[in-house]
Amino acid sequence: MKLWQKETTSISEKIEKFTVGRDREMDLYLAPYDVLGNIAHAKMLESVGLLKRDELTALEAELKIIYLEILQGKFQIEDGVEDVHSQVELMLTRKLGDVGKKIHSGRSRNDQVLVDMKLFTRSRLEEVALASRKLFDLLVKRSNQHKNDLLPGYTHLQIAMPSSFGLWFGAYGEALVDDMAMIQTAYKLSNKNPLGSGAGYGSSFPLNRTMTTELLGFEALHYNVVYAQMSRGKTEQTALTAIAALSSTISRMAMDVCLYNSQNFAFVTLPDDLTTGSSIMPHKKNPDVAELLRAKTNRLKALPTEITMVMSNLPSGYHRDMQLLKELLMPAFDEILDCLDIAHFMLEHLEVKPDLLVDKKYDLLFSVERVNELVVQGVPFRDAYRQVGKEINEGTYQASRTLNHTHEGSIGNLCNDQITELMNAEMARFKFEKVHTAVENLLK
Amino acid sequence: MKLWQKETTSISEKIEKFTVGRDREMDLYLAPYDVLGNIAHAKMLESVGLLKRDELTALEAELKIIYLEILQGKFQIEDGVEDVHSQVELMLTRKLGDVGKKIHSGRSRNDQVLVDMKLFTRSRLEEVALASRKLFDLLVKRSNQHKNDLLPGYTHLQIAMPSSFGLWFGAYGEALVDDMAMIQTAYKLSNKNPLGSGAGYGSSFPLNRTMTTELLGFEALHYNVVYAQMSRGKTEQTALTAIAALSSTISRMAMDVCLYNSQNFAFVTLPDDLTTGSSIMPHKKNPDVAELLRAKTNRLKALPTEITMVMSNLPSGYHRDMQLLKELLMPAFDEILDCLDIAHFMLEHLEVKPDLLVDKKYDLLFSVERVNELVVQGVPFRDAYRQVGKEINEGTYQASRTLNHTHEGSIGNLCNDQITELMNAEMARFKFEKVHTAVENLLK
Amino acid sequence: MKLWQKETTSISEKIEKFTVGRDREMDLYLAPYDVLGNIAHAKMLESVGLLKRDELTALEAELKIIYLEILQGKFQIEDGVEDVHSQVELMLTRKLGDVGKKIHSGRSRNDQVLVDMKLFTRSRLEEVALASRKLFDLLVKRSNQHKNDLLPGYTHLQIAMPSSFGLWFGAYGEALVDDMAMIQTAYKLSNKNPLGSGAGYGSSFPLNRTMTTELLGFEALHYNVVYAQMSRGKTEQTALTAIAALSSTISRMAMDVCLYNSQNFAFVTLPDDLTTGSSIMPHKKNPDVAELLRAKTNRLKALPTEITMVMSNLPSGYHRDMQLLKELLMPAFDEILDCLDIAHFMLEHLEVKPDLLVDKKYDLLFSVERVNELVVQGVPFRDAYRQVGKEINEGTYQASRTLNHTHEGSIGNLCNDQITELMNAEMARFKFEKVHTAVENLLK
Amino acid sequence: MKLWQKETTSISEKIEKFTVGRDREMDLYLAPYDVLGNIAHAKMLESVGLLKRDELTALEAELKIIYLEILQGKFQIEDGVEDVHSQVELMLTRKLGDVGKKIHSGRSRNDQVLVDMKLFTRSRLEEVALASRKLFDLLVKRSNQHKNDLLPGYTHLQIAMPSSFGLWFGAYGEALVDDMAMIQTAYKLSNKNPLGSGAGYGSSFPLNRTMTTELLGFEALHYNVVYAQMSRGKTEQTALTAIAALSSTISRMAMDVCLYNSQNFAFVTLPDDLTTGSSIMPHKKNPDVAELLRAKTNRLKALPTEITMVMSNLPSGYHRDMQLLKELLMPAFDEILDCLDIAHFMLEHLEVKPDLLVDKKYDLLFSVERVNELVVQGVPFRDAYRQVGKEINEGTYQASRTLNHTHEGSIGNLCNDQITELMNAEMARFKFEKVHTAVENLLK
Repeated sequence: MKLWQKETTSISEKIEKFTVGRDREMDLYLAPYDVLGNIAHAKMLESVGLLKRDELTALEAELKIIYLEILQGKFQIEDGVEDVHSQVELMLTRKLGDVGKKIHSGRSRNDQVLVDMKLFTRSRLEEVALASRKLFDLLVKRSNQHKNDLLPGYTHLQIAMPSSFGLWFGAYGEALVDDMAMIQTAYKLSNKNPLGSGAGYGSSFPLNRTMTTELLGFEALHYNVVYAQMSRGKTEQTALTAIAALSSTISRMAMDVCLYNSQNFAFVTLPDDLTTGSSIMPHKKNPDVAELLRAKTNRLKALPTEITMVMSNLPSGYHRDMQLLKELLMPAFDEILDCLDIAHFMLEHLEVKPDLLVDKKYDLLFSVERVNELVVQGVPFRDAYRQVGKEINEGTYQASRTLNHTHEGSIGNLCNDQITELMNAEMARFKFEKVHTAVENLLK
Repeated sequence: MKLWQKETTSISEKIEKFTVGRDREMDLYLAPYDVLGNIAHAKMLESVGLLKRDELTALEAELKIIYLEILQGKFQIEDGVEDVHSQVELMLTRKLGDVGKKIHSGRSRNDQVLVDMKLFTRSRLEEVALASRKLFDLLVKRSNQHKNDLLPGYTHLQIAMPSSFGLWFGAYGEALVDDMAMIQTAYKLSNKNPLGSGAGYGSSFPLNRTMTTELLGFEALHYNVVYAQMSRGKTEQTALTAIAALSSTISRMAMDVCLYNSQNFAFVTLPDDLTTGSSIMPHKKNPDVAELLRAKTNRLKALPTEITMVMSNLPSGYHRDMQLLKELLMPAFDEILDCLDIAHFMLEHLEVKPDLLVDKKYDLLFSVERVNELVVQGVPFRDAYRQVGKEINEGTYQASRTLNHTHEGSIGNLCNDQITELMNAEMARFKFEKVHTAVENLLK
Repeated sequence: MKLWQKETTSISEKIEKFTVGRDREMDLYLAPYDVLGNIAHAKMLESVGLLKRDELTALEAELKIIYLEILQGKFQIEDGVEDVHSQVELMLTRKLGDVGKKIHSGRSRNDQVLVDMKLFTRSRLEEVALASRKLFDLLVKRSNQHKNDLLPGYTHLQIAMPSSFGLWFGAYGEALVDDMAMIQTAYKLSNKNPLGSGAGYGSSFPLNRTMTTELLGFEALHYNVVYAQMSRGKTEQTALTAIAALSSTISRMAMDVCLYNSQNFAFVTLPDDLTTGSSIMPHKKNPDVAELLRAKTNRLKALPTEITMVMSNLPSGYHRDMQLLKELLMPAFDEILDCLDIAHFMLEHLEVKPDLLVDKKYDLLFSVERVNELVVQGVPFRDAYRQVGKEINEGTYQASRTLNHTHEGSIGNLCNDQITELMNAEMARFKFEKVHTAVENLLK
Repeated sequence: MKLWQKETTSISEKIEKFTVGRDREMDLYLAPYDVLGNIAHAKMLESVGLLKRDELTALEAELKIIYLEILQGKFQIEDGVEDVHSQVELMLTRKLGDVGKKIHSGRSRNDQVLVDMKLFTRSRLEEVALASRKLFDLLVKRSNQHKNDLLPGYTHLQIAMPSSFGLWFGAYGEALVDDMAMIQTAYKLSNKNPLGSGAGYGSSFPLNRTMTTELLGFEALHYNVVYAQMSRGKTEQTALTAIAALSSTISRMAMDVCLYNSQNFAFVTLPDDLTTGSSIMPHKKNPDVAELLRAKTNRLKALPTEITMVMSNLPSGYHRDMQLLKELLMPAFDEILDCLDIAHFMLEHLEVKPDLLVDKKYDLLFSVERVNELVVQGVPFRDAYRQVGKEINEGTYQASRTLNHTHEGSIGNLCNDQITELMNAEMARFKFEKVHTAVENLLK
């Protein structure tokens, strides 16, 4: 049952297992991006005379074949091969001999993994942005649908003033606008080119880093080679911070759903797909999916702390510690994309209870309306406030249930169009097309 | 010595102390912004007929007097007054009677504190951006100064390849470009108007929120009133995340300085102002300032986690818990501004040791140059690599110390101008002028 | 408004402010313990011939005077004096001349602050243990009082099975038993003697560390001087972890109170002292105290992370960074003691609503009892389960509301006596008396 | 490449994948403990008349067969079976029919998973304790071996006073004594019986929880059934806190090794097994294993924060969120056991450089000895301190390199025997034998 069984495992196997860990599994995420980096690097090497034209042609042809194998799920890192970079180089060398080896000129595995990580992160953040936008569109749609379905509004978990499902859905929509700004910042940091920084101190070869920047569709260079290496950790941290921001929106929404689904609130109903029964209580419909959505996003919120723990107080320059960052970053993208998808499904099928406020318990929601009514009749505010308090205590208070909110963002004027404009403006900053075009050109 | 001495402290004092805590101290940070919010709100109330023209005139005159008192450090929150909002209202009422009370129409303390926090955060983030830019300029200057002062480059804390102080200073400069993107994102979130959202469910008064948005120089509205309230926590979190990003840059730089100042490295010398002696060891020059810079910024990195701990799993709607966020946010700005200032002073006066690489110990830094030399002579790379390894083991290895790095961001081509352009582009996105003009107009 | 105004603040003032920070404020917490450490060290120095008998007599007399001044609140750290250690030494030297200086022989400020911290932490943890015990006794008392007051039990926030206030109060009581085990562990780590470890590498004076261990009532030595220094950070971390464990119990209880106080649950009523009204809603009774209890304890839960952030990846040996740990540890004790006190007050005065389960909504709590009823009548469990499910769906289900739980820890058999025995066993491990006696002997 | 491909994955598969996640994988860790819990529960049911004697006999026989299958690695959770508890019950029912179903009487999956977790955690903490003890023994051995091998001692990363490898190895040994106290506390919390608490509200069956407590070798009951459920999260948190304490010791030691292995210190040499070369630099021997040890333990330090994030502000009662705690806890045990094993290997083979202090650079380590020398000659301390400072500045300082430290825990008196006694006392508190005997009796 012990992981390391002394009698059967040799020292070198033990050390190998400890150092490689889950790294080869993580490297599979990087495979397509490693090929893209290789093509761009090869083109550049040819342009500065370090590869011949026919060598480049051969390399490009072979790399495109590998890219296809990856897309088809056929690519593997063979036993005994250390990482994705070595595997790709090995495949090239098997086919092309010494030409395959030449592709590593002016490069180190340090900048190779950096460029792979940047491309991977950039691509995943695009998926996250699009899934968030899809969730936003649903929230706006449901907000508009339910603008007249009133809901008790709470402060301090105490009944406060009237709200509506229009406001509730719309609020989480607008939250995604602010989260999108964080995603955009993370995207920007992932969209800078570290290739050519070598092991962190550059190369004496006459590389053209501006050329690889354009070929890979990067927005800018990480110029300073020492900083390019230092961006390891910062890039992951920023991406995980964006995921954490999104997670905090989703987890709060899931908490609301769990609460609103409790019999003591009973504001929403979940479809059977999203609830489970109990093995002993025949009446149960538990909101497991909402709970796991809450738990998984809460956990994602801890990842920036994990990165910090690993990186804190490490001096500048590469350390092997950074390998571990992959295990923090990569599964987090899968998890947040799952959560966005499930949140979409849940919010699409959540049923809203109508006419909630007819319950006498919610009369108190309208106490401010009653105060305002008196104010309009000429009673000074402070006196009106006291009079309504007295009415409540004596049981004579009667709620006038007409609502008349007109200002921007209020129950009667949701401004979902304006919120959508804010979202459109955020999305417009990404310029995904430029990136797609560059990648397509590379593979042409 | 006990905080709560049962015999002398009444229950109500005890509860008061517990609930108020450091909140009045924190509220002093908000005072000038509370006045600005009041002026904008009053102007808007007048425009929609809820205040008369002469009432507005009287209120504005009085509010400007209070603003001046705040600037002069004379403003206080009196004993028995709960918070800055009540204090300002009290001062208005003392002078203007019932007119003072009218200013609270269509508003709740919830949106009042929100707007104060937004204005405060926006203003402090501007200070942080400017101080970061100042540090950036120094780093670029020192990078240019020391472009020819070589430094051992390390990977795995092992001697690796030649670096330079030009690269080292410049790397931290370029890091600040990426940090500035985070500051900009935080600024954007602080630059949205929550005023008019009331207790989180809006108001039935016909408020004009677009007008207060323009008056206060906000870039946009938090439209949805439920989301406006929900932005509490998210705004602070994002600001602290930007501070944490900056902190991770500074703390790593401080770690480098502590290490480079150790006798075992001896790459830099700190001026006497920045070191302390020991009470028992007559030879000590301890880098206390760099150590405290490291510790303080490391601590700041934990603040986003603290915010998350407080906010996690709270359902939507205001909770009193949010009061505590002030104590997390406000002193953090003082701390990071201090750290930026001290970092500037330290980096300005840090002395760089010349001719470090003449030490024979650093010969190995040039092993790759030796390999490349052989490659140029026609030896295949793998053979050259082995030959140099053999030379090192046999003690015949001789380092050729000529360096010839030409590519972007390398030791011979720092690209500080291009990095400065990236920084300029980040700064240009802030549009501080628009905000300044709005504030000046309010106070005119 | 800026902290550092270049024109008026000299560099040295700026650096002084940065390095001292809140340290002198923190040092006031240590003052009485510094005196105790001085007395023990002086007695030991005399015993090994490094002080004369009459020098010891003079020092002890003077130190007891200083101790009294501290208890009377008269002790201050003067301007220009760096810390509490220097202040005490200065006061001795003023009175006794060179004899005052002799007391520092064989000691460094590093082990002096360590011993002060240990004594302070040990003393504060005793206060925390006693306050937790007091809360425990109240919880047991209220559990017994309310053993027959039924409460809906929830899983997944869904109505599940019958619970009682007897179980609810008792559960938080038993939680404190496990928290006490953590407090005891922290106490043990604080109860080891670092004195004599000097700056972390000991002294060539013939110190008798066993003697100071006994004099200060420590349970054991931190023998290895390098480890004694390394215990800095670990001791604070463990104390804060114990505080965090306690905090998680209190914060969860506060969350329950906030929820149960919501009109949608309405299980408890809070006394007016513990609620606040709203400035606009005349019907509000907000549970601010419970909310702040939740927020403050949630924040305390983040402190172990803060310590970790500061200490991570620092090599062994003292670093000035450790000064900052004081600011994390010391106010945390004040905060948790406050929270324990307020929690006690709140739980003492919380009113429990009787007869909650008569509400038809809670009929479903008894569905398992109905199933069991059928099982007893001979219906197989799985069939009974299905039949009751059908009854519920068709509206024919009728709850049999007799409960008959007899096993240990169930609604009908709370086992509060056994839980109290567990608590007594934890308390007995502290051996506070031994410590009190040692301290009294020192001051005799 | 997308996780959820709408066109091929049905909603129910998607939801199933989301809710089950890695839970079945985690449940395999629990399998043997689930069987133990089943045997104890069955015996108890028979004793209170809920099972017949021959039913018990049949169940026990079958359960022991399943236990054997688990040990042989043959046990699997079949497709479509939700968890380990269902799988075991299914296997019993297949073989024994209705008797298999009876075993669930008076139990819920909530207390079943709780008891499995407790038994698993208790067992794993024993492994951690033993591996830590093994590492301790090695550290003491190496400390004794190298008591005369001097090492520069640093404060502030500045050369301070003489230390030794005896002190250095011994310090990390003594750290493990304090860590063992945390492991012991976690063990205590894992050694309490939650069985019989059902879904968190007990059962109306006349269970005998004292009997299952004894059968499973638990030290005590979690009496209160509501608390038994609430211990979920607290148990995991405490176990992970113990792992984190251990991790902070190992990660600091690994940082020292990385630093001491740098050419600028060159205090230790790592065997080739523990270093890697570089693909481009022929001279490199990178300490990858020490770096990954540092990174992995740093990451483990973040786990208590993750637990807190998931559990914060959840009201009492079971929530599905808690399922996620398994994924945090279980792999953490594998990781720390790995790290302890690798740390042992590394420290066993670390070579220590002799005669380090002959290097002139380290003369300054002896400045305090020079001061003391003058003091012994009658020069007042303050004058001696100044004189040596002057000698250092003028280059006339000469280090007298004789050391004479005699006090407890100093360079000349390591006290490793006393430290070992402290460790023995910690180990004695575990009482593993009692647990082993109970488990053996269950399986007899």
